[in-house]
Amino acid sequence: MQALLTEILDEVRPLLGQGKVADYIPALATVEPRQLGIAVYGNSGELHVAGDAQRAFSIQSISKVFSLVQAIGHSGEAIWQRVGYEPSGQPFNSLVQLEFERGRPRNPFINAGALVICDINQSRFAAPPLSMRDFARRLAGNPELVIDNRVAESEYQHRARNAAAAYLMQAFGNFHNDVEAVLRSYFSHCALRMSCVDLARAFCFLANDGFCKHSGEQILSARQTKQVNAIMATSGLYDEAGNFAYRVGLPGKSGVGGGIVAVVPGRFTVCVWSPELNAAGNSLAGIKALELLSQRIGWSVF
Amino acid sequence: MQALLTEILDEVRPLLGQGKVADYIPALATVEPRQLGIAVYGNSGELHVAGDAQRAFSIQSISKVFSLVQAIGHSGEAIWQRVGYEPSGQPFNSLVQLEFERGRPRNPFINAGALVICDINQSRFAAPPLSMRDFARRLAGNPELVIDNRVAESEYQHRARNAAAAYLMQAFGNFHNDVEAVLRSYFSHCALRMSCVDLARAFCFLANDGFCKHSGEQILSARQTKQVNAIMATSGLYDEAGNFAYRVGLPGKSGVGGGIVAVVPGRFTVCVWSPELNAAGNSLAGIKALELLSQRIGWSVF
Amino acid sequence: MQALLTEILDEVRPLLGQGKVADYIPALATVEPRQLGIAVYGNSGELHVAGDAQRAFSIQSISKVFSLVQAIGHSGEAIWQRVGYEPSGQPFNSLVQLEFERGRPRNPFINAGALVICDINQSRFAAPPLSMRDFARRLAGNPELVIDNRVAESEYQHRARNAAAAYLMQAFGNFHNDVEAVLRSYFSHCALRMSCVDLARAFCFLANDGFCKHSGEQILSARQTKQVNAIMATSGLYDEAGNFAYRVGLPGKSGVGGGIVAVVPGRFTVCVWSPELNAAGNSLAGIKALELLSQRIGWSVF
Amino acid sequence: MQALLTEILDEVRPLLGQGKVADYIPALATVEPRQLGIAVYGNSGELHVAGDAQRAFSIQSISKVFSLVQAIGHSGEAIWQRVGYEPSGQPFNSLVQLEFERGRPRNPFINAGALVICDINQSRFAAPPLSMRDFARRLAGNPELVIDNRVAESEYQHRARNAAAAYLMQAFGNFHNDVEAVLRSYFSHCALRMSCVDLARAFCFLANDGFCKHSGEQILSARQTKQVNAIMATSGLYDEAGNFAYRVGLPGKSGVGGGIVAVVPGRFTVCVWSPELNAAGNSLAGIKALELLSQRIGWSVF
Repeated sequence: MQALLTEILDEVRPLLGQGKVADYIPALATVEPRQLGIAVYGNSGELHVAGDAQRAFSIQSISKVFSLVQAIGHSGEAIWQRVGYEPSGQPFNSLVQLEFERGRPRNPFINAGALVICDINQSRFAAPPLSMRDFARRLAGNPELVIDNRVAESEYQHRARNAAAAYLMQAFGNFHNDVEAVLRSYFSHCALRMSCVDLARAFCFLANDGFCKHSGEQILSARQTKQVNAIMATSGLYDEAGNFAYRVGLPGKSGVGGGIVAVVPGRFTVCVWSPELNAAGNSLAGIKALELLSQRIGWSVF
Repeated sequence: MQALLTEILDEVRPLLGQGKVADYIPALATVEPRQLGIAVYGNSGELHVAGDAQRAFSIQSISKVFSLVQAIGHSGEAIWQRVGYEPSGQPFNSLVQLEFERGRPRNPFINAGALVICDINQSRFAAPPLSMRDFARRLAGNPELVIDNRVAESEYQHRARNAAAAYLMQAFGNFHNDVEAVLRSYFSHCALRMSCVDLARAFCFLANDGFCKHSGEQILSARQTKQVNAIMATSGLYDEAGNFAYRVGLPGKSGVGGGIVAVVPGRFTVCVWSPELNAAGNSLAGIKALELLSQRIGWSVF
Repeated sequence: MQALLTEILDEVRPLLGQGKVADYIPALATVEPRQLGIAVYGNSGELHVAGDAQRAFSIQSISKVFSLVQAIGHSGEAIWQRVGYEPSGQPFNSLVQLEFERGRPRNPFINAGALVICDINQSRFAAPPLSMRDFARRLAGNPELVIDNRVAESEYQHRARNAAAAYLMQAFGNFHNDVEAVLRSYFSHCALRMSCVDLARAFCFLANDGFCKHSGEQILSARQTKQVNAIMATSGLYDEAGNFAYRVGLPGKSGVGGGIVAVVPGRFTVCVWSPELNAAGNSLAGIKALELLSQRIGWSVF
Repeated sequence: MQALLTEILDEVRPLLGQGKVADYIPALATVEPRQLGIAVYGNSGELHVAGDAQRAFSIQSISKVFSLVQAIGHSGEAIWQRVGYEPSGQPFNSLVQLEFERGRPRNPFINAGALVICDINQSRFAAPPLSMRDFARRLAGNPELVIDNRVAESEYQHRARNAAAAYLMQAFGNFHNDVEAVLRSYFSHCALRMSCVDLARAFCFLANDGFCKHSGEQILSARQTKQVNAIMATSGLYDEAGNFAYRVGLPGKSGVGGGIVAVVPGRFTVCVWSPELNAAGNSLAGIKALELLSQRIGWSVF
């Protein structure tokens, strides 16, 4: 496995320079672009890494999985009254669909849906960002994880489109807390910094019927675990979920920080990271690395 | 397995009477609604059935899988220039998305995408309906399969919305043959009659790395097989693909005749049939039966 | 007036070469582009012309006014159950709005609305194209008007987008006759050839409370006349109706043949023609000429 | 004229009770519904009134005309780079079109467009609400006009949909000031209280080539005046502009407070008020009264 990971990184490294680092906020635009790392974590506890696997990066939308799992944890099926689990077929931040469907977002992994999930969590937790950070620390078994407040603040300054989505949902009665407060929480979640190793370890409960060995917690039931994986499989990569299923064939979630986590149910989690993105906002080299890995080991669930 | 299938049918039978048989054409509206059957076919050749598993019904949109596989067979990756493989997030017959995306349908399982696939096949085959019927006969190992021309003709008489989609694609240059001729082919495919047993057998190559044991043919490569399964998983159930992934967790394809086929990669195919549909146009009892089956045997790929 | 018309044509002539002749069908693309004519017809019968005012051209969408007036003539207010009179805010041939509004077009001057009007007329007249041609002959006082069948046939060959609109309306139950037959009628109407003088004379009933002096007919009531003018004012120039109101301030109707007719209620009609179009599909020099004319004589109704 | 106004009010009074007072904020919902007034103001200074013509009401969207005129006054044609003057064909508060057209609203009379105009004025005036109030006082010749701060505050509390529009425009770079501050200004404008007499007098410059006799100011040039009237004619009544043109045939602007002002260019202004609204958000009795008035006096510009 170790050799395979190194070989795959070598193979995709020529893609570095062909993508584009997220630049919608200054704090993200300054990341060194030519980084590439991968970590594979098995249910039996073995860890394989290659490249920049230990370097922390901004997890961005990968945090949406943590928020969703928290919300399922305390509210269960009730959350689906406020957000769906159908793929959206629209860019991740479009308001068109949200208006036609009267303020109920298609799924928890488009921005509007993640904002509703944050709104649900805001009603439950005194300090949602710390609550989510601590949750991620437990899942990853790493008490050092930190939120980059500079990134969170910069995202808040550029909140216009997310604010528009949140206010639109409020207009339809699907937002219960102060919009600005929830936006602050949302951006704090996005600004959590984790490495490939952290993320592979943190997601391992999704490959393990909901049980997290580091913390000894049953995070979700086995059935809920399958459900979260199903939503990642149909909606985890923005407007490119179909492409990811076609090429990689695994449940996954990406972030504009360049990270992608994928789950091989019952067996492994894998996290790949490279900051340069493709046109759909997903890590260019990351998707290619996962495609090669899936093909060579036969990991596709299909 | 036999006992389990019988038990599940008993459990979902109370749903009969709560759905609505497709009635957009007279020829479909007259089907006896309270029918229910299931067939499971294993890669080693074993067959288990319960209920009305031997009764033939109109496969309707399930035919889209046969057309797609035919098109991949003769044209390979080239077909993706004319149709995508992303979920649509729209009702199966909406023209809105088709116009915004300039005549390139989102995937081959919405009507517009299936029409493009038929247009591709029309350029290749002298008599596309017979070609597809014979293909289905070989896959199912049943030389008796027939097209119900009365249904095909009735669908053609009610072709308005599909004609609108086809002409719109022609307006964007993404339709090469005579629209009326392709519509005729398309409706003939939909009007093929098969039973649960026929369909479970016919789809078994998708659970078997592309190899069909009845005909001894390698229908698709192992990789193409995963790709077709991936597209079924993200787009196979109209606007309810996410729900099917969430509840059943298998690649599948449904038709308004009330049939649903699902694939357990590497192991089984299963076909369930009950004519009454839910609001999304999928078999009400059929989805429930598959959900129970998937949960009890742990078949979800997630 | 004569001097003014000549002066205005001289002033706009430098625009020739800056627009683009309609080229979606070969039969229109071959028209000599650098033509420019204008005719003003007063309620008292005086006619003033300049430039190529006597040369016949393809009236195209200007025919939609004749069709509408015919339909009002025999069916009155009943037509508004099938088509609205609100501006569309969309390009003239978009299907998006038509689908959202369930097959009822916004107004009779977008293509979908004109097709519904043609469908209404098709139910009434044995030979709609001849009926409309004869109606135009009477209105213009010119028995020589002819339909260019070569243009009509060429439009029919390129009917895809209009066919899509018609079939979509049929899918919603808002189309009663054979789609292909109505399309044939529609394109024949568009292919009628008239000159600026013909059109200025033919439209004079709209400036004269509905009375046509050439034929001695009361074509519409005074109130219906105001209504038709109102619809032209809000919807007569495709997606540029607001611009035309802002710059010219008169009810008007344009065609992709390069003609524009405007009405000065109670006083005049004016027709300008120049084949080169702007991005919105209206005559580039024509709109400028009408703007200058309106400003210099103070013709704006506003 | 006096007798005619009284007669018309008597004729439309049976409509009272058939509409619905705006109730999206408590402060508007409590207005006494069965009120009805009309005022006609002629260019020569004569005033005719009937019913509750002297009672002040919340002018709401009628304020958009004052804001637009202010913006034209200090910035002229430059404002059209940020907002169009085409009818929208969409409900007055839809975000769909705004997103497709990349944050540039269709016209200054839909909410998004009015917000952009307020943003332009916010960059110019130290205290936009007072500036607009004083402008309205001068136009109406009534130094007593006041803003109802209770209404403004209540609207601000229910700002969600307007906030969504403003943030969406900011996301596209078409909003320059603090969103919350501009929303405060916008709602203050809407909360100005004026009577039918005030509004008929205040709008008279639009019937008088831009000159306001009460203040002795040339508010707009004659050409700009026609342009503002043209925009009112194509976009002044939300999604019902076509209907208003068809039935009334005058440039006009309505508000959800139940007021409608119409302009008879060169001759009169008329303001009608009745709080109960139709489904399109316009005064039910008000539109009917204007229709009767326009027909009986032949006021339609068409």
